[in-house]
Amino acid sequence: MASEPIMRIASQLSRLPGIGPKSAQRLAYHILNLPLEQVRELATSIWEGRKSARTCSICGDLTANDPCPICSDKKRRADQICVVRDPRDVPALEHMHSYSGLYHVLHGAISPMDGIGPDDIRIRELMARLSADVEEVILATNPDVEGEATASYIARLIKPMGIKVTRIAYGLPVGADLEYADEMTLSRAFEGRREL
Amino acid sequence: MASEPIMRIASQLSRLPGIGPKSAQRLAYHILNLPLEQVRELATSIWEGRKSARTCSICGDLTANDPCPICSDKKRRADQICVVRDPRDVPALEHMHSYSGLYHVLHGAISPMDGIGPDDIRIRELMARLSADVEEVILATNPDVEGEATASYIARLIKPMGIKVTRIAYGLPVGADLEYADEMTLSRAFEGRREL
Repeated sequence: MASEPIMRIASQLSRLPGIGPKSAQRLAYHILNLPLEQVRELATSIWEGRKSARTCSICGDLTANDPCPICSDKKRRADQICVVRDPRDVPALEHMHSYSGLYHVLHGAISPMDGIGPDDIRIRELMARLSADVEEVILATNPDVEGEATASYIARLIKPMGIKVTRIAYGLPVGADLEYADEMTLSRAFEGRREL
Repeated sequence: MASEPIMRIASQLSRLPGIGPKSAQRLAYHILNLPLEQVRELATSIWEGRKSARTCSICGDLTANDPCPICSDKKRRADQICVVRDPRDVPALEHMHSYSGLYHVLHGAISPMDGIGPDDIRIRELMARLSADVEEVILATNPDVEGEATASYIARLIKPMGIKVTRIAYGLPVGADLEYADEMTLSRAFEGRREL
């Protein structure tokens, strides 16, 4: 219905999550009214950002440089590793401004229903990181069935090694998404973590 | 807080209307997980779409080819011109599947408050299109103060030329609840009542 440049942009945008056909079209009209230079920046950021993105070989977070800034930060505590499901959980936790240890991104959670087992997420890589320096592994997977199963599984592997394993507290509403928790709730959950 | 490729994409996306920092970040993470080829398509569509966009020299709609597909469609009635404010209004009206005339996009509305006068929108271009072939000009500017002012202004210019000038009707939206309609809409709907 709309003109070809609009259709072209809108059809691509509507493939993104949370952007329906209506808002894709609205965004497309907005983009066609922007100065060329700003549209170039937008398109370049998407393409270059995607191209430059790699996975940190240590923690598994998304990064432009390997190792990522957190893993290469000498000021951070190397004796704590916080285990999360997704890269997007890292900035959510960093937002607390109270954790200064390292992270480990699993890129998924154990989910027999979806055929995702322990070997399909970065658990092996986590085990390989557990040297004598590591004093605590904080399991910050989501407070849902899969996150819970993943946490228990990892706890069972690590405990025999004599490393303290903690789980963030159920201060979070059950079934919620870690990414959307507010800082206060997240901080409380973090403080209230208990040994498994 | 998030890694650099994420920040780069998110900061650009959050400049778009209706995309806040949270959803920009969410979209950025989604984009970083897409296959390279799909991201290339997305970025290219935005950039190429913007670059190819021009204004139809006849109607003023956004198009990749001048004249636009509607203006060059010989099957459309050339004796009706529907006047709208924005390019985005054209697909909205096309969606009715009942209008087969031409369009004229003003790219704005008369608004003394914002310093926008008749010479700042494409009224001159509309007048230049009014040949003996044109039998009706349908004023489909928005039903707000500016749209109303623009419609009255254009009507005053065209009427002396002996061309029929119509204005889309005010009334209740289909499926609306009379109880919740505002007084202005309700009295307009009342005034505009027609014999059954």
